[in-house]
Amino acid sequence: DQPLLWICGPCVIESRDHVLMVAERLRRLADELGLPLVFKASFDKANRSSGRSFRGVGLEAGLAALAAVRAATGLPVTTDVHEPYQAAAAAEVCDVLQVPAFLARQTDLLEACGRTGRVVNVKKGQFMAPWEMRQVIAKLADVGNERVLLTERGTTFGYGWLVNDMRGIAWMQQCGAPVIFDATHSVQKPGALGDRSGGDRSMVPLLARAAVAAGCDGLFLETHPDPDQAPSDGPNMLPLDQLPEVIRVCLRLRQVVLESSLQDRNRE
Amino acid sequence: DQPLLWICGPCVIESRDHVLMVAERLRRLADELGLPLVFKASFDKANRSSGRSFRGVGLEAGLAALAAVRAATGLPVTTDVHEPYQAAAAAEVCDVLQVPAFLARQTDLLEACGRTGRVVNVKKGQFMAPWEMRQVIAKLADVGNERVLLTERGTTFGYGWLVNDMRGIAWMQQCGAPVIFDATHSVQKPGALGDRSGGDRSMVPLLARAAVAAGCDGLFLETHPDPDQAPSDGPNMLPLDQLPEVIRVCLRLRQVVLESSLQDRNRE
Amino acid sequence: DQPLLWICGPCVIESRDHVLMVAERLRRLADELGLPLVFKASFDKANRSSGRSFRGVGLEAGLAALAAVRAATGLPVTTDVHEPYQAAAAAEVCDVLQVPAFLARQTDLLEACGRTGRVVNVKKGQFMAPWEMRQVIAKLADVGNERVLLTERGTTFGYGWLVNDMRGIAWMQQCGAPVIFDATHSVQKPGALGDRSGGDRSMVPLLARAAVAAGCDGLFLETHPDPDQAPSDGPNMLPLDQLPEVIRVCLRLRQVVLESSLQDRNRE
Amino acid sequence: DQPLLWICGPCVIESRDHVLMVAERLRRLADELGLPLVFKASFDKANRSSGRSFRGVGLEAGLAALAAVRAATGLPVTTDVHEPYQAAAAAEVCDVLQVPAFLARQTDLLEACGRTGRVVNVKKGQFMAPWEMRQVIAKLADVGNERVLLTERGTTFGYGWLVNDMRGIAWMQQCGAPVIFDATHSVQKPGALGDRSGGDRSMVPLLARAAVAAGCDGLFLETHPDPDQAPSDGPNMLPLDQLPEVIRVCLRLRQVVLESSLQDRNRE
Repeated sequence: DQPLLWICGPCVIESRDHVLMVAERLRRLADELGLPLVFKASFDKANRSSGRSFRGVGLEAGLAALAAVRAATGLPVTTDVHEPYQAAAAAEVCDVLQVPAFLARQTDLLEACGRTGRVVNVKKGQFMAPWEMRQVIAKLADVGNERVLLTERGTTFGYGWLVNDMRGIAWMQQCGAPVIFDATHSVQKPGALGDRSGGDRSMVPLLARAAVAAGCDGLFLETHPDPDQAPSDGPNMLPLDQLPEVIRVCLRLRQVVLESSLQDRNRE
Repeated sequence: DQPLLWICGPCVIESRDHVLMVAERLRRLADELGLPLVFKASFDKANRSSGRSFRGVGLEAGLAALAAVRAATGLPVTTDVHEPYQAAAAAEVCDVLQVPAFLARQTDLLEACGRTGRVVNVKKGQFMAPWEMRQVIAKLADVGNERVLLTERGTTFGYGWLVNDMRGIAWMQQCGAPVIFDATHSVQKPGALGDRSGGDRSMVPLLARAAVAAGCDGLFLETHPDPDQAPSDGPNMLPLDQLPEVIRVCLRLRQVVLESSLQDRNRE
Repeated sequence: DQPLLWICGPCVIESRDHVLMVAERLRRLADELGLPLVFKASFDKANRSSGRSFRGVGLEAGLAALAAVRAATGLPVTTDVHEPYQAAAAAEVCDVLQVPAFLARQTDLLEACGRTGRVVNVKKGQFMAPWEMRQVIAKLADVGNERVLLTERGTTFGYGWLVNDMRGIAWMQQCGAPVIFDATHSVQKPGALGDRSGGDRSMVPLLARAAVAAGCDGLFLETHPDPDQAPSDGPNMLPLDQLPEVIRVCLRLRQVVLESSLQDRNRE
Repeated sequence: DQPLLWICGPCVIESRDHVLMVAERLRRLADELGLPLVFKASFDKANRSSGRSFRGVGLEAGLAALAAVRAATGLPVTTDVHEPYQAAAAAEVCDVLQVPAFLARQTDLLEACGRTGRVVNVKKGQFMAPWEMRQVIAKLADVGNERVLLTERGTTFGYGWLVNDMRGIAWMQQCGAPVIFDATHSVQKPGALGDRSGGDRSMVPLLARAAVAAGCDGLFLETHPDPDQAPSDGPNMLPLDQLPEVIRVCLRLRQVVLESSLQDRNRE
């Protein structure tokens, strides 16, 4: 059996208490459904549309909060890093380091993450074809790291839209790494709200289902108890209380996919 | 229960005997799996990349071949029409009239098809957003036809590529019609072979699975006993002997989708 | 010297008197500036977004109006045809037959136009790469017509947008035909107004200038005395009184391009 | 008069002697044609497709080489920075700091560059709509820097293609900054050569001409004595001996644009 990997959490660390509360609910869900689940939250939103938007609590406080989550819940944790110097510090706390999509081609950042020995999850740049991620894997292999995840989060599609090519899941798997599908950032509408991105969270379940049926290896879902009040990515996050239903249908779809011999062909 | 509708057959009518042979195999498969299946083949490929490619047997011989399929197998049949004058003749034989994607905005053709009273299946133009199909439905309603199917077959994505936005399935359902997913034309690579389109049939099962999980109402799959020898659309047709496996996994995925309350939300 | 060809007129024939009035103004402008100018207007808008929008006066009345324009002004005239049967009738009146972009791949329509012996101006489909127009030229050559113009009017770019790739001018010239740049349809925003297309006419002069500098062989500009009151394509038509200024700057840019040896390289 | 600004040089600093040689040729050209010209070369190619490609001489040696260029030729110089810590060092030598397109949304990098007080030239991300650059200008204004240039270098267009929307020049000017057109990176074909980007330098003159006619405020052109032997971006750089001809035709086009009142409307 190859269970789906789940990477879930709020977009940004709002406070230590807030992430602990969300993480505790996710841990109970993971226990109940038997999910391998990694808790994700960002210490810094380094590429907000506007310089005046909330950025987060910063590296030190953020990593401390993630360490607290790890200690309190036993969940592995991940966060995104934006500059090479952050990689080592983040690796002390995190089981997985995430490289943001805009930075997927920054060699120094990839190498710094790779050198920590942690799993590195690289989001495909919105400006990249899926097969270009082969070079990303090669850059990580060059520093001795072969524990790579690739994440699909949409490709630029004219102005103000992203589109998910579900074939990209197979094309990235053929590059030699498991592929996670980010169902919440995929529904972003870049720049749609003037000084920030819009989104349409009603499409998250549909895209998650489609990606699982296409054969992805895991799901990335940002979730929040009250997305409309969230300081970042509210329009595309999934309300926490809608998460179980989405996960359940995905698990059933996964079972069908695993039972079919067709699924193996993604990697040919 | 809302079973998936299947529209299957070879791209073009090569001969009366050939379509009868393929249709007989499809009928047995439909019987075996309990599928509502419509046999599809074209009497004319009116928009080939090159004017020198095989176009088909023509309107009269083509409709005669489809009538023979209908009589011999009991399967409902469909074909695509390209000019208004063809609609009435095609409607005498066909249960469903198909409007090609390039022609999805041609008002006279839509109206001529609509006036026959037959089900009209309009493929979304590669140049259209899913929600623009609302106007297509309105044009058909204006001539009294509300028996409409919409088909997703990809959207222009730079040069030489199509992409399927799986959200388009829901957006078109919200226009008020069932949505068919055309998994074989979706893998076309327009112009990729110089004077004809290329394609990558290895991606057909993946896209079909994803579309069913996204909640589509039916599948359109062009199939051929020997696609590499087919006179049209060979690179993207599915070999007939691979069809049962694809259908089986789709049926199981459909079952999961129907059992989940999430599926209903596509139409909200 | 290779003067720019100008194809100008209102989008649709509103009435015989209306086109005569507009054509007379265009004739005076052509005389004043020494322009080879073809008068364009449509007898039928066969692919309106909505079936309830104004379509035009029809084939017979439309061709009569164009014949009147030709007689009264001496200007050559052109119109777009949508079905093969219209080609011969249109060719009796028109010097140039235009094939709409959505129909650029319809073999029968191209051949019917080609067989008239008139110049055929084919707009590149929004779903086509520029080099795919080579097959269009071949289809026309197969019926003995080598008097072909190709027109750039934008390529699908995500949802609701068209984009002009100025390199397409050279790529289409390399297919072996002069290339006209349609500066008014290029600023359309498909579906932007719900049941009709939007547009941004403020960008028409910029795109026209860029295309001339890129080396196009002519300009297509829809123009109207009062675009905001026009029954079709108002948002993207150029007010008639702004036309002279746009033409004048284009003529000066053309002169610079012709004086530079770089211009010849477009066709290499 | 508003002369075009020229930003020219080889993609990467190959050696001190090499940049001095190229810069000397550019200085003579600038003198001869009266051009405001900034010399550009990179000390580090931080986002190469492949981690094994040549990256450059590094920060220290690179800035030393640029300082030598400045001293020897009197030309202002610019380079691109990739991490915030590099901004201050680069600003000691460079008159203009360039922010790469992939990094156009990285707030810390923008702010670090802005704080140096130098002119900051931000390339529009391939994943951004032109009007999203308004937020980039706001981020720089927030640290007190209003000396901003924006550069158009193409937008993602399906897989393996970039496209230039010439309207983007006006839309970015309306954000409140002069707009430079990067004619050499615009012809890149991302990932086209497997582990590196391809390109088609034959289209550089066409795009440069179009952009000038569209009203851009300057041109960015990477140039090299022998591009086919260059360690980076060879396929899209312009041979140094073709540069004068391209510049001359652009200067003449600029003159036409400045004489036309239409040009002023770009900024409305």
